[in-house]
Amino acid sequence: MDKLRIGVIGAGRIGKIHVGNLKRLPQAEVIAISDLYADAELEKWAREREIPLVTNDSDAMIHHPDIDAVFICSSTDSHVPLIKSAARNGKHIFCEKPISMDIRQTEEALEEVRRAGVKLQVGFNRRFDHNFRRVREHVESGAIGDVHLIKITSRDPSPPPEAYIAVSGGIFMDMMIHDFDMARYLSGSEVVEVSAHGGVLIDPAFAKYDDVDTAIVTLRFANGALGVIDCSRQAAYGYDQRAEAFGSLGAAYADNDYANTVELSTSSGVQSDKPLYFFLERYNEAYILETQQFIDCVLSGTPVPVDGEDGLQAERIARAAKLSLQERRIVKLSELDVAGSIHAEREGR
Amino acid sequence: MDKLRIGVIGAGRIGKIHVGNLKRLPQAEVIAISDLYADAELEKWAREREIPLVTNDSDAMIHHPDIDAVFICSSTDSHVPLIKSAARNGKHIFCEKPISMDIRQTEEALEEVRRAGVKLQVGFNRRFDHNFRRVREHVESGAIGDVHLIKITSRDPSPPPEAYIAVSGGIFMDMMIHDFDMARYLSGSEVVEVSAHGGVLIDPAFAKYDDVDTAIVTLRFANGALGVIDCSRQAAYGYDQRAEAFGSLGAAYADNDYANTVELSTSSGVQSDKPLYFFLERYNEAYILETQQFIDCVLSGTPVPVDGEDGLQAERIARAAKLSLQERRIVKLSELDVAGSIHAEREGR
Amino acid sequence: MDKLRIGVIGAGRIGKIHVGNLKRLPQAEVIAISDLYADAELEKWAREREIPLVTNDSDAMIHHPDIDAVFICSSTDSHVPLIKSAARNGKHIFCEKPISMDIRQTEEALEEVRRAGVKLQVGFNRRFDHNFRRVREHVESGAIGDVHLIKITSRDPSPPPEAYIAVSGGIFMDMMIHDFDMARYLSGSEVVEVSAHGGVLIDPAFAKYDDVDTAIVTLRFANGALGVIDCSRQAAYGYDQRAEAFGSLGAAYADNDYANTVELSTSSGVQSDKPLYFFLERYNEAYILETQQFIDCVLSGTPVPVDGEDGLQAERIARAAKLSLQERRIVKLSELDVAGSIHAEREGR
Amino acid sequence: MDKLRIGVIGAGRIGKIHVGNLKRLPQAEVIAISDLYADAELEKWAREREIPLVTNDSDAMIHHPDIDAVFICSSTDSHVPLIKSAARNGKHIFCEKPISMDIRQTEEALEEVRRAGVKLQVGFNRRFDHNFRRVREHVESGAIGDVHLIKITSRDPSPPPEAYIAVSGGIFMDMMIHDFDMARYLSGSEVVEVSAHGGVLIDPAFAKYDDVDTAIVTLRFANGALGVIDCSRQAAYGYDQRAEAFGSLGAAYADNDYANTVELSTSSGVQSDKPLYFFLERYNEAYILETQQFIDCVLSGTPVPVDGEDGLQAERIARAAKLSLQERRIVKLSELDVAGSIHAEREGR
Repeated sequence: MDKLRIGVIGAGRIGKIHVGNLKRLPQAEVIAISDLYADAELEKWAREREIPLVTNDSDAMIHHPDIDAVFICSSTDSHVPLIKSAARNGKHIFCEKPISMDIRQTEEALEEVRRAGVKLQVGFNRRFDHNFRRVREHVESGAIGDVHLIKITSRDPSPPPEAYIAVSGGIFMDMMIHDFDMARYLSGSEVVEVSAHGGVLIDPAFAKYDDVDTAIVTLRFANGALGVIDCSRQAAYGYDQRAEAFGSLGAAYADNDYANTVELSTSSGVQSDKPLYFFLERYNEAYILETQQFIDCVLSGTPVPVDGEDGLQAERIARAAKLSLQERRIVKLSELDVAGSIHAEREGR
Repeated sequence: MDKLRIGVIGAGRIGKIHVGNLKRLPQAEVIAISDLYADAELEKWAREREIPLVTNDSDAMIHHPDIDAVFICSSTDSHVPLIKSAARNGKHIFCEKPISMDIRQTEEALEEVRRAGVKLQVGFNRRFDHNFRRVREHVESGAIGDVHLIKITSRDPSPPPEAYIAVSGGIFMDMMIHDFDMARYLSGSEVVEVSAHGGVLIDPAFAKYDDVDTAIVTLRFANGALGVIDCSRQAAYGYDQRAEAFGSLGAAYADNDYANTVELSTSSGVQSDKPLYFFLERYNEAYILETQQFIDCVLSGTPVPVDGEDGLQAERIARAAKLSLQERRIVKLSELDVAGSIHAEREGR
Repeated sequence: MDKLRIGVIGAGRIGKIHVGNLKRLPQAEVIAISDLYADAELEKWAREREIPLVTNDSDAMIHHPDIDAVFICSSTDSHVPLIKSAARNGKHIFCEKPISMDIRQTEEALEEVRRAGVKLQVGFNRRFDHNFRRVREHVESGAIGDVHLIKITSRDPSPPPEAYIAVSGGIFMDMMIHDFDMARYLSGSEVVEVSAHGGVLIDPAFAKYDDVDTAIVTLRFANGALGVIDCSRQAAYGYDQRAEAFGSLGAAYADNDYANTVELSTSSGVQSDKPLYFFLERYNEAYILETQQFIDCVLSGTPVPVDGEDGLQAERIARAAKLSLQERRIVKLSELDVAGSIHAEREGR
Repeated sequence: MDKLRIGVIGAGRIGKIHVGNLKRLPQAEVIAISDLYADAELEKWAREREIPLVTNDSDAMIHHPDIDAVFICSSTDSHVPLIKSAARNGKHIFCEKPISMDIRQTEEALEEVRRAGVKLQVGFNRRFDHNFRRVREHVESGAIGDVHLIKITSRDPSPPPEAYIAVSGGIFMDMMIHDFDMARYLSGSEVVEVSAHGGVLIDPAFAKYDDVDTAIVTLRFANGALGVIDCSRQAAYGYDQRAEAFGSLGAAYADNDYANTVELSTSSGVQSDKPLYFFLERYNEAYILETQQFIDCVLSGTPVPVDGEDGLQAERIARAAKLSLQERRIVKLSELDVAGSIHAEREGR
């Protein structure tokens, strides 16, 4: 194969971003896009981008003989059936995070992927950020020695609408899942213990859905290191995504990105502009890179940089964090292995 | 009174620093210094600084008719008896932190201070740091809105010798007590809940004394805000003391101080020098300021900026953190009010 | 017109960059590319980018009925005849800097452009840099008050080969012409006086061509402000392009861009990576923006952001700087208006 | 000698600062202070600092048998006679800058100092600044290779009153003399050529005294390097004193100092406080260090860090800059050696 023919499932914001990025890659060809609500407008949009097939039937894509890989960008509840179906039809898969909100279902999907021998990459785009990647390099090269602490700050510019909160899966599964993945990525170690603390400080709507809008999650890694993530649904100054790895020989810090770094000094002080507003601006290059690497890995037959196991582990940490918050106790990840279903029931899910 | 006559108890490192700073204040006069191990060398040192009286008997100072105030810089176990005795003799008191390692004893000492009507200031010098103070101002002025999160980083350049570890009182009471005070100072709210996590990652000696060298403590404040402190006994690059207050309208960050801020750009990158090595270098100005304010407050009869209650609350948080680590659970500060003695016994102290 | 059909003249590095950027713009269509050395390799390159016509005859493009605009990316000596010819044929023109190395020839070319009523944009890409643009905004908004000083740093990572030095036109016309434009852009005022100082500190080859590799040029603007540009052909740490505007109410500073902003703190200090290596990396986004704005302005019939007059003025400053260096004196720009030819002769050009 | 007995001449702002700093040095003893306007208030001030002798007769101090060294902090026109007299009486001398405004007079004073064999240190306090010193270290260590460019920014927060402008000696001798010294200090090379440009952009009063308030001075050093200093009498954001040394292997940058480095991020951007207001705040530590080193050098008989030759050379550069501005031409320092008097006459001084 020297060119990957792709079908994109889900024409929402993130689906369209992936199409835009795929169009820039000479080794990728988007030949179809599906959306439950495919309409004339989407057809026009697709035509401008020279995408031949527009459909409201994702199945048609999964069975399309010319399609080598699918990008699953539809709602989370559709991920597992689509992954299973795509795998069974021999399509390689790029799936947005989380794979699902139920770790047993995620495991089943991964089992199907393994059986089919197709590739599955999960959309943890932040791993491809220039700064976080550089921190990881400093850990991998041994520049900071043995990792002792991982610190992550994760704040959105503004909370989602209530309708979204209701179906989001909660702050851990919806928002912090990225940070749980980042913690694993930066530390190079698995999380074994989680302790979550949270509050509703921004919007009372979160309380209605048994959710929080502000949280601190403490992690313990298999290698003995500790981690902490602080998270907020609303930062007045915009998207705040920083990370720090501290070890026996030093520390590496990743700051935010800024639209410009000009400093203005006047009689009232020194001022500069806010960080880039939100994930689309901040992770623009990271989205391109993750897509490119997926294409490269599939074409070259090498392992994808973020696989199903990465997706699963982040979900397990999110699951443990929710349990920790509800039961006000430290939760071991190993509890989920034996008693995932029991806990799920106890929660009344 | 237009000049405060002072006796310094304890001629160790911190005692000598206070003498040096007091010598620069025209309104302070150090007229005596005591140390259990007062010797010819100390006498010479005192003579050079024109301190008339050198003694090994702290009692002599507390009963000295010309002394208005004492600086208690001796070992922690001597603090409570000295405070009580000084208070009963009408001396104003500046006491290094912690007042004691037993919150009931601290309460008794404070009771004696209240009864005597003397002033007691506790040596939480970091409140006088130019950067932390500025963060506090941004909180107080409302610039960051309602406080949602307080984040503190606290790392020493290198761990103390084992002999010190043995009697230190543990990482929470010895080292993080400063950070617990900082959390109260920055948030302007009381801590109501503590959850501590720790590990021995630097020196196995800590384990011998049921202590940890790396810790993350999560706090919940009375006003609903959350806090987190990460702490390490060893940062290869030197003293690392940063803080951040995040709220509904923004965030304020305090960075470290540096001996210089020169940047060197070469073919191998951009380099600058490490932060100031340790507390003596970093908090040099803060030590001067805290001393000055104590003198000013005593002379003017105004409240001291850090009082016994501040000392007590930080100890209570340290106590709760130790309990949390030992019992692997969230500890409410209110538990200490009713059951301090029980817990103390349970720990076998 | 809703789409601009473009012919690119010159398939060197910058020509190919413009093709790449034009391919991303839905309103632009590259239909031809010419190069004196057009060969099979270029044809393959063009085919991959779906450019129908490849030729070694730039004239064919200028007379091509379907071409609306040309991008002149060939060697400097070809610019003037190409501009004249394109203008006479009613093509809009994007021309790389400098228009020519002889200000009278540049003036003649501009006269032809005016007569034809076509648009001409000059490739001063740095005006589209996010940081320099922000400094300009702070000047325009009045945030720094009346401009008093403009300071520009301009250093290349490494000197060009001797063959290039020989035909470059010298440091002022080849390299600093960008900075002269930046000085006009940031100050919003014309340069009236120039004083140049230089030396050969990097490579003796420069001396052979009566050129310098290190220079400082002081400017006086029509509004009374002063400016200074320091320039070097070799910065060990990479491309160094900074600017500062200082005025009655404050100052605005533009720093370099960096591949990442991660800081690594270890026992040997704080380190971070070098600035982006050279203009292709640094001005990637700026090149895209300038192309986009040219397309937009031609399609909408609005004035281009950097026109022929901007090209001419920068050349005049470069000319004055060369004269100043040679005659070791302050040169007024007005001297060039009356005596350009005389000076040119005096120089033996 | 194990203690230096000092007489301070001139009880203005800078004289009092030196007294304060000398009081902190155990090896220095201020035994007298003189001022033309010595009054009861000065006597009270001196008494509080335990300075036994207060006089309005500087001669009395120069002949005082117990005085080892004098600090000359009186007006510039008194420096030369005081230096000569002090030298003849065997007193070591610390003299504020400039030694005089007439380089022949300065030379005569230095001749007297040499003959007497006493030490003379000139008050170029900025050499003792932590940041500038670090830049110098990077030059000396070879970290930036051969020096190619020295860049200095020098801006005062606000212009002096007209009465001061009238007698200041002009921007070059009064203000930039510090920068001329800094250029020599950082480059480690002598200035051989000067080209000055200036304007009156802040206060028309400067024009009345044939002075400018904004200036750019370009330097050429003996080692071939170039230098540039930009200078303003008024920066709205406070004292702006930065420097940069650029060489064959890299560059070193010294930034301003700030009262705090706290960053506040809100919806309107990122803000921090202005640089330290003026020289007293900025160079507080530098003043202490220069005094300490003078005392140490006199007591140990080692060369002082900034000697008369340093004072002279800075004055020569200032003189050349004035000539350059007046005659609108590059001035070689060597012109001053043969024709100093002629030029002085030509200027009508």
